[in-house]
Amino acid sequence: MHIHLITPIITKGLRTLDDVSQLMSDELSITQSLIETGPASIECEFDEAMSVPGIVVEAIKAERAGCDAIIIDCMGDPGMKVAREMVSTPVLGPAETSMHVAAMLGHRFSVVTVLDAVVPMLENLATVYGVGGKLASVRSIGIPVLEIEAAPERVSDELIKASLEAVEQDGAHAIVLGCTGFLGCADAISAALNAKGYDLPVIDPIPATVCMAAGIVRAGLTHSKRTYAPPRSKELAGYPAITEELQGDRT
Amino acid sequence: MHIHLITPIITKGLRTLDDVSQLMSDELSITQSLIETGPASIECEFDEAMSVPGIVVEAIKAERAGCDAIIIDCMGDPGMKVAREMVSTPVLGPAETSMHVAAMLGHRFSVVTVLDAVVPMLENLATVYGVGGKLASVRSIGIPVLEIEAAPERVSDELIKASLEAVEQDGAHAIVLGCTGFLGCADAISAALNAKGYDLPVIDPIPATVCMAAGIVRAGLTHSKRTYAPPRSKELAGYPAITEELQGDRT
Amino acid sequence: MHIHLITPIITKGLRTLDDVSQLMSDELSITQSLIETGPASIECEFDEAMSVPGIVVEAIKAERAGCDAIIIDCMGDPGMKVAREMVSTPVLGPAETSMHVAAMLGHRFSVVTVLDAVVPMLENLATVYGVGGKLASVRSIGIPVLEIEAAPERVSDELIKASLEAVEQDGAHAIVLGCTGFLGCADAISAALNAKGYDLPVIDPIPATVCMAAGIVRAGLTHSKRTYAPPRSKELAGYPAITEELQGDRT
Amino acid sequence: MHIHLITPIITKGLRTLDDVSQLMSDELSITQSLIETGPASIECEFDEAMSVPGIVVEAIKAERAGCDAIIIDCMGDPGMKVAREMVSTPVLGPAETSMHVAAMLGHRFSVVTVLDAVVPMLENLATVYGVGGKLASVRSIGIPVLEIEAAPERVSDELIKASLEAVEQDGAHAIVLGCTGFLGCADAISAALNAKGYDLPVIDPIPATVCMAAGIVRAGLTHSKRTYAPPRSKELAGYPAITEELQGDRT
Amino acid sequence: MHIHLITPIITKGLRTLDDVSQLMSDELSITQSLIETGPASIECEFDEAMSVPGIVVEAIKAERAGCDAIIIDCMGDPGMKVAREMVSTPVLGPAETSMHVAAMLGHRFSVVTVLDAVVPMLENLATVYGVGGKLASVRSIGIPVLEIEAAPERVSDELIKASLEAVEQDGAHAIVLGCTGFLGCADAISAALNAKGYDLPVIDPIPATVCMAAGIVRAGLTHSKRTYAPPRSKELAGYPAITEELQGDRT
Amino acid sequence: MHIHLITPIITKGLRTLDDVSQLMSDELSITQSLIETGPASIECEFDEAMSVPGIVVEAIKAERAGCDAIIIDCMGDPGMKVAREMVSTPVLGPAETSMHVAAMLGHRFSVVTVLDAVVPMLENLATVYGVGGKLASVRSIGIPVLEIEAAPERVSDELIKASLEAVEQDGAHAIVLGCTGFLGCADAISAALNAKGYDLPVIDPIPATVCMAAGIVRAGLTHSKRTYAPPRSKELAGYPAITEELQGDRT
Repeated sequence: MHIHLITPIITKGLRTLDDVSQLMSDELSITQSLIETGPASIECEFDEAMSVPGIVVEAIKAERAGCDAIIIDCMGDPGMKVAREMVSTPVLGPAETSMHVAAMLGHRFSVVTVLDAVVPMLENLATVYGVGGKLASVRSIGIPVLEIEAAPERVSDELIKASLEAVEQDGAHAIVLGCTGFLGCADAISAALNAKGYDLPVIDPIPATVCMAAGIVRAGLTHSKRTYAPPRSKELAGYPAITEELQGDRT
Repeated sequence: MHIHLITPIITKGLRTLDDVSQLMSDELSITQSLIETGPASIECEFDEAMSVPGIVVEAIKAERAGCDAIIIDCMGDPGMKVAREMVSTPVLGPAETSMHVAAMLGHRFSVVTVLDAVVPMLENLATVYGVGGKLASVRSIGIPVLEIEAAPERVSDELIKASLEAVEQDGAHAIVLGCTGFLGCADAISAALNAKGYDLPVIDPIPATVCMAAGIVRAGLTHSKRTYAPPRSKELAGYPAITEELQGDRT
Repeated sequence: MHIHLITPIITKGLRTLDDVSQLMSDELSITQSLIETGPASIECEFDEAMSVPGIVVEAIKAERAGCDAIIIDCMGDPGMKVAREMVSTPVLGPAETSMHVAAMLGHRFSVVTVLDAVVPMLENLATVYGVGGKLASVRSIGIPVLEIEAAPERVSDELIKASLEAVEQDGAHAIVLGCTGFLGCADAISAALNAKGYDLPVIDPIPATVCMAAGIVRAGLTHSKRTYAPPRSKELAGYPAITEELQGDRT
Repeated sequence: MHIHLITPIITKGLRTLDDVSQLMSDELSITQSLIETGPASIECEFDEAMSVPGIVVEAIKAERAGCDAIIIDCMGDPGMKVAREMVSTPVLGPAETSMHVAAMLGHRFSVVTVLDAVVPMLENLATVYGVGGKLASVRSIGIPVLEIEAAPERVSDELIKASLEAVEQDGAHAIVLGCTGFLGCADAISAALNAKGYDLPVIDPIPATVCMAAGIVRAGLTHSKRTYAPPRSKELAGYPAITEELQGDRT
Repeated sequence: MHIHLITPIITKGLRTLDDVSQLMSDELSITQSLIETGPASIECEFDEAMSVPGIVVEAIKAERAGCDAIIIDCMGDPGMKVAREMVSTPVLGPAETSMHVAAMLGHRFSVVTVLDAVVPMLENLATVYGVGGKLASVRSIGIPVLEIEAAPERVSDELIKASLEAVEQDGAHAIVLGCTGFLGCADAISAALNAKGYDLPVIDPIPATVCMAAGIVRAGLTHSKRTYAPPRSKELAGYPAITEELQGDRT
Repeated sequence: MHIHLITPIITKGLRTLDDVSQLMSDELSITQSLIETGPASIECEFDEAMSVPGIVVEAIKAERAGCDAIIIDCMGDPGMKVAREMVSTPVLGPAETSMHVAAMLGHRFSVVTVLDAVVPMLENLATVYGVGGKLASVRSIGIPVLEIEAAPERVSDELIKASLEAVEQDGAHAIVLGCTGFLGCADAISAALNAKGYDLPVIDPIPATVCMAAGIVRAGLTHSKRTYAPPRSKELAGYPAITEELQGDRT
């Protein structure tokens, strides 16, 4: 099986295949691409919107290359619905996937994320995904995406603090990491929560979404084309890369 | 007062200032612009996403030109949240505005729109806008946006039929036209409903939104910058028109 | 345009046209009346109920006098639904209007009001108006309506304190003043919130409702007569002023 | 135990103690009064509002006369919240009580009522009472209150028809009669539903509310004075009967 | 009238008829039985599930003995839905009954219970019973069921503390005792709340449910057989006591 | 990886490993067991409750045998919460899993199941699992579980009919088979829906749950022990097989 990860930013080096190498096996290969047009990181509605055209290009390319599932590597799930219209290959977003997994595993879940600015976005996603009633809270640690890499200890400490508050004050029974840039932080949070007597799942969105995507593929499922019908053909100005892919698609 | 209407498509001639001339007065001037990059019409998530970068450009330009409010001329409210991050001038979407006005005026409302493909989008908007409990139904007439102009009678007949079904089968107490391309159709629907004994508001989104935007401006209000904080400054690739506007913005 | 404000209490001098003079213009005249039967102030379900018959009289009179919209000057929206049954002229309540405006402008809103006793009423209104999911909290300052005028500084201080708590503890992204007697307090609250770095709308219900009512009128809309059908004619004992107005209405 | 029934209309003879005689016993006496000011019947928000001042008078009188519980004999529960502020004796409304009993006994319930005009009112009551999620539908039979007595067979036939539709089309698992004027109709509906193979509760609101009120009294409970605090003392104009009762109350 | 109480545990002496003797009268006899198979106390999903087969046996026996209503003496309402399928006699659960009564009497209610482990169960019950929107909070005192009897003062102190926090921090307008083992504790809590100025109902589930069950019986009502249809006859292995009762039932 | 399937009935031969053989591989072995005490099939609350003690025994055995995940082979998810308390190995229910997968893949989903009797159970499950807002409808085909095997064509025809109605009348964008006995029917339904122009997922719960369980295991996740804490040790009467397993567990 082949899963393609679209990291919807233009900043090189933040995400590498090393991050997910432990998930690869004889049965599962993973590839990854950045986008060519878009923002350096995603922390607001504007950043998200700027990432979508680039995601469309990568999604069409990935499907044409024969991948079995596509994952958008950002907890805002930018372009997920759009990409589902453009391809038949399953497209998964880590926010949608992690929230549903968290809802399955515990009574209520909290999301711990980067900045206050994305709290309304994550709450709205939970609502639209139909699991708003399972969301205990969204907490943020006040560290921008591009500063995560340089301050791993502070990030870890703040995530532990926010997770503990989510458990003790908000009634969280599961934690979802609210930025895919937190990849690898789950174990430290679990350990810290366990040390306080709290035994609950801490969901690292990208590994979890890769595993669930593999499940969706093995089950022979994909998104509903009644919800995500292919766009009607029409004129489009200003997106040469997309136009080129769409023409490729039709020939 | 000066209100600017961004029609988020590239098709010329569909929307002209003639459509809203009856709203203009000594006190209210209205201007309008198309977008330079984007789709010919908006009927799905892809079309919406493609319209957003162009909307950002027009919104920044409109604010710099000193307008008092900006309205996005599409019932998907594409780019509304993004534009609110980019400018301080009030930005209104006709879906959000019409749904809240309908919720104020009647017990429940239905939306009658163009195609099945946009039904989930409109239902999701109602949910995120917080008025999902007031939505009786979304019905569609099966006519694409670009065919509305050529078939005014069929459009009117189908809208009347869908509105009657919304009233009689879904319990609608108010009707919201679900495409800004239906501008001018409300009177015929009202007359047809009245002839059947149903006296209820039929909301034409663009006129209604222009009037409510004027109200927001007179009340000295704008969107919350706690919800729509200005994006953090960062690198952006592939959007020269936006980059140029943002630089203009900072100089 | 002519908007009539019904102040649904019998206490003279609390509300004068001076309070709304800044909203008047060549295009907008505002008149105001008290009710002749009812309570000195409105702070509970009993007070509200006692105000309704007097509101009915004033609403019928205002419509007959040719006004374009009627506003009920109390955040309990007493008699709003009743008045909508009695007249075709748009009738707006400041609670309904402000809550919908707040829901449009920000992610969640809080109401800051006079007394604990009205908290359930305001929460129930948000629920019935369909925006309960957007309500972050209702907070009260413990000052009765008739003491507001005498203690403007204490009122302002307490409103600032409650608004800050709503923002910092309850997640409010917009504030609605929860008593029309707070008219004029919004600026001080905005300034205090801004000083703490919170840039969000503070909605003063009467100015906001006057402006939105003007918008409703200009859009040619009124409340749904399917929701608010005229009452069937029947015997009524004990309300001579209403009976007289209704007879006038039918002759 | 002594339960007092306030029939909140001025029409004599519609409700007599004969209607509830089968509920009386050595242990339970029932008294009843009409109101002196108010409408001939209750079928809209206006009628309801007009009944409330009269209900207040009767409620205070009933409490002073030493009754153990007060029931408001109308499915709009007019004045229930107001009366709860005025007295400490339990005040029950048949809508609130029947809806909660129906929610306890079956998966979902429908209400069958008199006129379309009261459908929004009943839906709003279910929402405010917190059982909106258990409400399958509200259906109406198009017969005004004052015509019920003269057309018992037509009423029964229409109620049976509406109840069957509620069961077969709306998924009702229990039926609530939506007008206290339907007292005595439950058996015929039950029989008709049973003949079709549907074995489910048909709740006649007044008998059910009398029995549940007796239960509340025996359990030593009454409404929360935190929700229904006594009104603050203040001037009141135009309600001599209430003023007199309140003075009596304080002396 | 004869009400039978099934105490769904095997521990003798915890519940005796003395506990409910004040409710008995010439008109109301109460009997009680333990179950023969099941747990010593109920504090989790496993305990609940283990109690259900024993409850089925007791419910069938109680119906055959001619009782008028059956109450399951545990705030998890174990086996309530199952028993309703097996018998036509009304079966009431104290959680369902108390929560609906609390919802009727106040704006919002909190439950104060034994252990954190049952909080999700009680929240889920409120949701399924349709009153989740009226639930302010569930708080626990950290004392297991079998330790209640030995530490009455600590239990009372902790219940008072939790109730006060529910009122002051969670906005409770009514309190429901969240374990039937707390029988008799309501008065002390009421007194303590009153001493702090909070006048609100404290619902002791078993007395309240006995009184409401009597009301249901007098109203001639029982649970919906559309919701709780009798099980289809089929083979059952491993439950000799149930099989015996079912055979008795059919002969 | 080793997944164990607990088929919670006593009827032999209905479910065999042949049914899931296409899911087995070098990487995934599947075992299966029936329960020793319980019902012949599961079609109501009573049947479910009777299956739980047997499920507990099989779950403990399966965990001790070293399996990686446990699946309960019934769309009522009987004993899922109980088993999660007893073991640390992930326990998945096909209803919970399928409903969350359906919610991820389409706008709304419908469940098509065996009998009317299980409709409330499935609706309640959707509510408790937090996806009630994504449930379009539950439809039943009126065929008992034990008759499925003998009438495959009728079952298939009825499932197609119910699925079409769900799509056309209820707005389903995905279909979930509502009985694990329907295993293998998804393809025929998909084909029939496709022939009508509806391209949407039809989820066969057991294959889907096996695949998602494998994903949960690979992601290193299991259910929250904060939600599903191990039961406190206490006396238990009448369940020798469970007692034996628990003793084994502790030695």
